[in-house]
Amino acid sequence: MSTSKPAGPNAAAATDKSEKKPHISDTPITWSNWYQHVNWMNVYFIGFLPLAGVVATIWTPLRFYTFCWSIFYYFCTGLGITAGYHRLWAHKSYSASFPLELFLALCGGGAVEGSIRWWSRDHRAHHRYTDTNKDPYSVRKGLLYSHLGWMVMKQNPKRIGRTDITDLNENSIVVWQHRHYVWVALGMGIIFPSVVAGLLWDDWVGGLVYAGICRIFFVQQATFCVNSLAHWLGDQPFDDRNSPRDHVVTALVTLGEGYHNFHHEFPSDYRNAIQWWQYDPTKWFIWTMKQLGLAHNLKQFRSNEIEKGRVQQLQKKLDQTRAKLDWGTPLEQLPVMEWDDYVEQAKAGRALIAVAGVVHDLSGFINDHPGGRALILSGVGKDATGMFNGGVYNHSNAAHNLLSTLRVGVIRGGMEVEIWKRAHSSDGTLKDGTV
Amino acid sequence: MSTSKPAGPNAAAATDKSEKKPHISDTPITWSNWYQHVNWMNVYFIGFLPLAGVVATIWTPLRFYTFCWSIFYYFCTGLGITAGYHRLWAHKSYSASFPLELFLALCGGGAVEGSIRWWSRDHRAHHRYTDTNKDPYSVRKGLLYSHLGWMVMKQNPKRIGRTDITDLNENSIVVWQHRHYVWVALGMGIIFPSVVAGLLWDDWVGGLVYAGICRIFFVQQATFCVNSLAHWLGDQPFDDRNSPRDHVVTALVTLGEGYHNFHHEFPSDYRNAIQWWQYDPTKWFIWTMKQLGLAHNLKQFRSNEIEKGRVQQLQKKLDQTRAKLDWGTPLEQLPVMEWDDYVEQAKAGRALIAVAGVVHDLSGFINDHPGGRALILSGVGKDATGMFNGGVYNHSNAAHNLLSTLRVGVIRGGMEVEIWKRAHSSDGTLKDGTV
Ligand code: HEM
Ligand code: HEM
Ligand SMILES: [Fe+2]
Ligand SMILES: [Fe+2]
Ligand SMILES: [Fe+2]
Ligand SMILES: [Fe+2]
Repeated sequence: MSTSKPAGPNAAAATDKSEKKPHISDTPITWSNWYQHVNWMNVYFIGFLPLAGVVATIWTPLRFYTFCWSIFYYFCTGLGITAGYHRLWAHKSYSASFPLELFLALCGGGAVEGSIRWWSRDHRAHHRYTDTNKDPYSVRKGLLYSHLGWMVMKQNPKRIGRTDITDLNENSIVVWQHRHYVWVALGMGIIFPSVVAGLLWDDWVGGLVYAGICRIFFVQQATFCVNSLAHWLGDQPFDDRNSPRDHVVTALVTLGEGYHNFHHEFPSDYRNAIQWWQYDPTKWFIWTMKQLGLAHNLKQFRSNEIEKGRVQQLQKKLDQTRAKLDWGTPLEQLPVMEWDDYVEQAKAGRALIAVAGVVHDLSGFINDHPGGRALILSGVGKDATGMFNGGVYNHSNAAHNLLSTLRVGVIRGGMEVEIWKRAHSSDGTLKDGTV
Repeated sequence: MSTSKPAGPNAAAATDKSEKKPHISDTPITWSNWYQHVNWMNVYFIGFLPLAGVVATIWTPLRFYTFCWSIFYYFCTGLGITAGYHRLWAHKSYSASFPLELFLALCGGGAVEGSIRWWSRDHRAHHRYTDTNKDPYSVRKGLLYSHLGWMVMKQNPKRIGRTDITDLNENSIVVWQHRHYVWVALGMGIIFPSVVAGLLWDDWVGGLVYAGICRIFFVQQATFCVNSLAHWLGDQPFDDRNSPRDHVVTALVTLGEGYHNFHHEFPSDYRNAIQWWQYDPTKWFIWTMKQLGLAHNLKQFRSNEIEKGRVQQLQKKLDQTRAKLDWGTPLEQLPVMEWDDYVEQAKAGRALIAVAGVVHDLSGFINDHPGGRALILSGVGKDATGMFNGGVYNHSNAAHNLLSTLRVGVIRGGMEVEIWKRAHSSDGTLKDGTV
């Protein structure tokens, strides 16, 4: 219909408009516009600022208390992202009471990775459109892109897949944190860690440099690994159609978010690691909060569903391996032989042996037979089904496998059929001997 | 036939004879006959003598040269058993030149575990009748029995399965070693190690106690582990119908014979470990002999056959796991529903959803839906096949699995069939609407 319609003034206007203002990310990068492609605010927050902190360490002595505080606050802000931003808000894998939500919203803000609302919207799009063009940090665009590039370079917000965040828009803490995000980030990321170190052991500068800026750098790089490393390194025990992977190294770096193949398959499970011996401190934290009455409704997929995924993936791998192996000519592709022909050829010196109605050519194997030359020869030209299957020796599964690769024909009727032989010998032609 | 025949004099005589002289092992052990049950010669060679040597170490200083010589000679005599007795003579997994055969026959004799002929006959019976009563060292009779008991207690030689050892009887080295076994064992087991230490660094007693007797003790216990530990500890990657198992600990103890599940499945392969990183010094020794021109015709199963065994065993395990899981009611056991009934019930408030012609009951899942309550409700009472399969969201394999556990019925015709509905509504009865 629309093809027959001539392009009216409206159509022209629409085209004009999009030609006038293409989003910067849809134009090629040139020497004259490259700086417009860069998201300078992000470069500042994840590049310059952390690097400045690292440089400042040269002049800033590291005190033991400050060191401990930095590590501790690293875990707090890390959990703000993993237990808060990720498992609570993006995936609703459990419910948190007000104090816990506040703690996570503040600490998560201190990691300086954007507001809950912004982070969760992108993350939901990442799950819903994994590995496609609508995935904000698709690893298909390169490991570095999924780690940092997607923040450093400007993106067309329209390209990112749409997701439903009505639940977040109704959450007062989320809305408050989003609205005052700059203050939360500044306060919790820089000022608070410095004030703690300053008031308690009078190390204002150390608190700023180590527990503030350097710690931000480490938390950021660690959590970015979930988008890069977790889609690149490790196994795929549940599904290999998409890029997410499980690896203990990623888990160690990311407070337990490294079992990412599981996570993409079961996103609303509050766990990422399901085995007790796997490293998932975020899970342990949520579980502890539950014991303290601060978290409830921890969601878990039934282990039945989880094991089904594992079994199917193993089956897929097994079928791939199986298809590459030689299982012998399929029976239906083998020529049909008369029993008498089989016996005759065997007598004429061909090392043929019939087992379960199938003729096998043993030349080349007789001398290698683990049971000896004599025993195997005793079956040549006969029906060796019984001998092979326990009459003389109950052959292993491996022997059965090997036998099937030596198939050369099937015997008409499966074995010596007296009435066919009689019909055959009496007039020299072949008749169907239905009695 | 034979049941109607009266017991004649011959039958009586036969019974008499067997009643007169039952083999000692077929009589119960009592306080008065227990010493007759014991094979005292074996108790001497694998019990008293080695123990005496261990006790003698208390008064015998261990010199460094003697220590090194004991270790070295331990490997020589161990290889005599593994590369010689086992892989060369019992399994014919390669051919050896005269000097190598002589070396292995002498060193193997120095392990004091019986002659090649006796050892190989039992070992062939062990492979042919594994785990049955005809297996001379069946692990089914207990771990200790398979380790030592079968030698310590007298056995009825008639019970042990018959095997073909014509090849061994034709081998002059084997026959010679068997005939002069006591001298070979004494000479190579005790005298030779003492003479070496005595002549070269004047430690006759140390050579006797350490390189002789104690070394015998260790070699014996290590190789006995192939019959006990290798049938008891580890995995079964190739076949789990019998007891043999693969374990690296057994391999470490037995110069590489610990990949015993593989070995029982592929006994004429000169390797026991097929991966280069697995510990199989016996394989390395044989391979080196080949490079030196002393061994040839090293037999190997095709990797195709080996991988087939592995795939089948994995499949078996997988099928067992799969059978334990809930895959939902099979389609053919579900009740058939009319499309209109489905719609009606959904309107009446039952949370039913039709996907691919199957009706699912979502009550209890709606609130857990990772995609939210609203989206899932939008499919209730409709044909949600498209929505579920990518129309709105392309659900994961896990979601498909979960869905199948929620099945409650199949829709007649698979979906809304207009002609049936018309037939239904026009006269109130159901007609087959063939146009
Ligand atoms: C029909 C006559 C045959 C007889 C009487 C016979 C007999 C035996 C015996 C007694 C053994 C045990 C050797 C031992 O462990 O000491 C053996 C092993 C073996 N035979 Fe045969 N055999 C026959 C045919 C075949 C054929 C046609 C094949 C070809 C695939 C075959 C493959 C094997 C293999 C691979 C073994 C090693 C042990 C195992 O995997 O079970 N045999 N055979
Ligand atoms: C027919 C209407 C349905 C719609 C429109 C719908 C939509 C969605 C959407 C958009 C998501 C992605 C959530 C995100 O990652 O942000 C999702 C996830 C999911 N949905 Fe549905 N859904 C429907 C029905 C169902 C049903 C009947 C089941 C029952 C098995 C189900 C199970 C799941 C599961 C397990 C997930 C988690 C992600 C995955 O495993 O793919 N959905 N759904
Ligand atoms: Fe991901
Ligand atoms: Fe996620
Ligand atoms: Fe064995
Ligand atoms: Fe063996």
